[in-house]
Amino acid sequence: MARVNDHYLKLRASYLFSETGRRTREFQAAHPDAKLIRLGIGDVTRPLPPAVITAMHVAVDDMSRVETFRGYPPETGWDFLLDAIVRHDYGERGIKLTPDEIVVSDGAKSDTGNIQEIFGPDCVVALSDPVYPAYLDVTVMGGRAGSADTGGRYDRIVYLPCTAENNFQPRLPERPVDLIFLCYPNNPTGAVMTRATLKTWVDYARERGAVILYDAAYEAYIREPDIPHSIYEVEGAREVAIEFRSFSKTAGFTGVRCAYTVVPKELQGRSASGEPVSLNALWVRRQSTKFNGVAYVIQRAAAATYTDEGRQQVRAVVDYYMENARIIRQGLETAGLTVYGARNAPYIWVKTPAGLDSWGFFDKLLADAHVVGTPGAGFGPSGEGYFRLTAFGGREQTEEAVERIKNRLKR
Amino acid sequence: MARVNDHYLKLRASYLFSETGRRTREFQAAHPDAKLIRLGIGDVTRPLPPAVITAMHVAVDDMSRVETFRGYPPETGWDFLLDAIVRHDYGERGIKLTPDEIVVSDGAKSDTGNIQEIFGPDCVVALSDPVYPAYLDVTVMGGRAGSADTGGRYDRIVYLPCTAENNFQPRLPERPVDLIFLCYPNNPTGAVMTRATLKTWVDYARERGAVILYDAAYEAYIREPDIPHSIYEVEGAREVAIEFRSFSKTAGFTGVRCAYTVVPKELQGRSASGEPVSLNALWVRRQSTKFNGVAYVIQRAAAATYTDEGRQQVRAVVDYYMENARIIRQGLETAGLTVYGARNAPYIWVKTPAGLDSWGFFDKLLADAHVVGTPGAGFGPSGEGYFRLTAFGGREQTEEAVERIKNRLKR
Repeated sequence: MARVNDHYLKLRASYLFSETGRRTREFQAAHPDAKLIRLGIGDVTRPLPPAVITAMHVAVDDMSRVETFRGYPPETGWDFLLDAIVRHDYGERGIKLTPDEIVVSDGAKSDTGNIQEIFGPDCVVALSDPVYPAYLDVTVMGGRAGSADTGGRYDRIVYLPCTAENNFQPRLPERPVDLIFLCYPNNPTGAVMTRATLKTWVDYARERGAVILYDAAYEAYIREPDIPHSIYEVEGAREVAIEFRSFSKTAGFTGVRCAYTVVPKELQGRSASGEPVSLNALWVRRQSTKFNGVAYVIQRAAAATYTDEGRQQVRAVVDYYMENARIIRQGLETAGLTVYGARNAPYIWVKTPAGLDSWGFFDKLLADAHVVGTPGAGFGPSGEGYFRLTAFGGREQTEEAVERIKNRLKR
Repeated sequence: MARVNDHYLKLRASYLFSETGRRTREFQAAHPDAKLIRLGIGDVTRPLPPAVITAMHVAVDDMSRVETFRGYPPETGWDFLLDAIVRHDYGERGIKLTPDEIVVSDGAKSDTGNIQEIFGPDCVVALSDPVYPAYLDVTVMGGRAGSADTGGRYDRIVYLPCTAENNFQPRLPERPVDLIFLCYPNNPTGAVMTRATLKTWVDYARERGAVILYDAAYEAYIREPDIPHSIYEVEGAREVAIEFRSFSKTAGFTGVRCAYTVVPKELQGRSASGEPVSLNALWVRRQSTKFNGVAYVIQRAAAATYTDEGRQQVRAVVDYYMENARIIRQGLETAGLTVYGARNAPYIWVKTPAGLDSWGFFDKLLADAHVVGTPGAGFGPSGEGYFRLTAFGGREQTEEAVERIKNRLKR
């Protein structure tokens, strides 16, 4: 039989969401009348903005006529979308990019998953702890994690703990690393990084020759003015950072699938013989060989989010979720809980009350308030003692969940 | 600086289409009045069938209302599409599959590119020669090709020559291989494989413990009754074959992006310790970690190709291209050329006339008839002496191209 990729066998079962699902189902079965509210989901619930809907209808009609039909998309994206990204997401913040530094894709999950492929197998990866689980899994699958101990920590990964004690800001790695995943605004903690702090990371990467893999999927949720939306707002970042962006959480595209990745021309790795190699060229090669672009209709949908009408509507949806975040944060604080995040991010990171660990609080919230969240320990050892709620629910459900937590959660 | 994936540096520049492009541009610049006809393209030109257009409009409207909005797609595809695939593509041919053996994706290029990732680095890959260039490139990028000689042949790849001498049917490998890419109907030769011949491959794979990566992207073009549309029509194939299907060439979806891959439950690889490992489980793990599914609107579009109306319309488009293929084949034969393929495939594989190699015929066709095709040598050494034309053009252009070849091609 053909040999398999043995690194896959080092993956730990994706215990988190299967276990929350199992406990939720069991509770519902034992309490069939309980009306559960799910605030554990990371998926959006608001419909697509009207400007996007209109653009998609027009694009579908383009596909119905021989004169306007579009076949294979250009390898890195249609110009109309690349130009809008350059102008609006970057130009308006004073960042100069060229369209050939951007590669449009079907999702940040794909891009953050595939990006390690252009790097050598010996690269050392640094990950926040807690972390979006896919970053860890793809590191394991690519053979860069080493072996796991009984607690699930892999010996080749450099973990960067983020807890209330360090204000959820990771310390610079103590041993050399090559690839650093940073995600701000952060999933799951909802923390953000100031320009000054991000500068210390850029400087570190420049000094050590590391590459920062910067996931800015939640940048649209930033409300405070001195929080950077892009790592390229920091001087010197073009030489050391790849940035991932997504329309999923910005414009409600989780079911539409569009994202993009920025790889500046200055960014280089080195070959076995020590020669510098353009990472932009490697990423374009990877995508043009193993990917065939994003549907015309989808790229038109994404481009519509940059029209005046589209931007207004997208902003309204983000505001809707951020009002949910405010309601949850204030409600939980009123209930006597300590709450982090939720000010520049759609994630609410709750300190579990004294005496309860992550899973204990999961069970208690389910039993007392019939509200489903996500135990922080599922995102990594440093997530123990925390709990994640999300702002992506409907307003009425969110308000009802908060009322229940305020009134029913037993001390 | 971070080390790059050095295997990428072993890729040869994608010379073929850049060189045909360069020669075409130079000819056009020197002959501005020449009206070029491009029959080198592998992209479709007919608009989407009306049933697909209608389904997409309905699905776009679903996304506009909170009640019918869809977020993240299910990891392996929406049930409505998986069920249609199981019933129509397989059930109607007497093949039993279950929906959990199918993973919907954005394209066969992605799937045939990513599939090697679930296998070990030491697997030996067998490729037809000539071959769809991406199969070779992904083998190089995954580190399974070894080093290239001056002619561009990699020392770890087992090449399977396909020429007129063996009726474009590869011989079984003479040394052990683990992964065998087969594509039928074939791109670029237009050849097909009978059930009996395919059985010898399945038997070989069963005996040697190899896995066949079967690309059936062009199955809709099969006209002769005893040519299998799926490798699973062959007994025993479930234990040894992964099948790739695409809506690109079947339903004109090159700009819509939808495909799927079948990994039967029986199919196994083995781990370092010799344990059998389910390849279905590995592929689902790969896709659910590094991919986030296909847009709801796109999956609805794909499902519409299985309705009575959709099937009729899709068939009409395929018939249109196959009539182009017939026109090209008969026209070229009338012009005294030897022609292969074009009977069960949208590709016409032409023997270059005496005294001309692939690139010589490219230049001559361009100069005499102002028709652009693709030199066979670009698909591999055994493609030398052949030339590819495609049936994906418009009718009028195709007829005009054939008339020019008949009347203007100088002996």
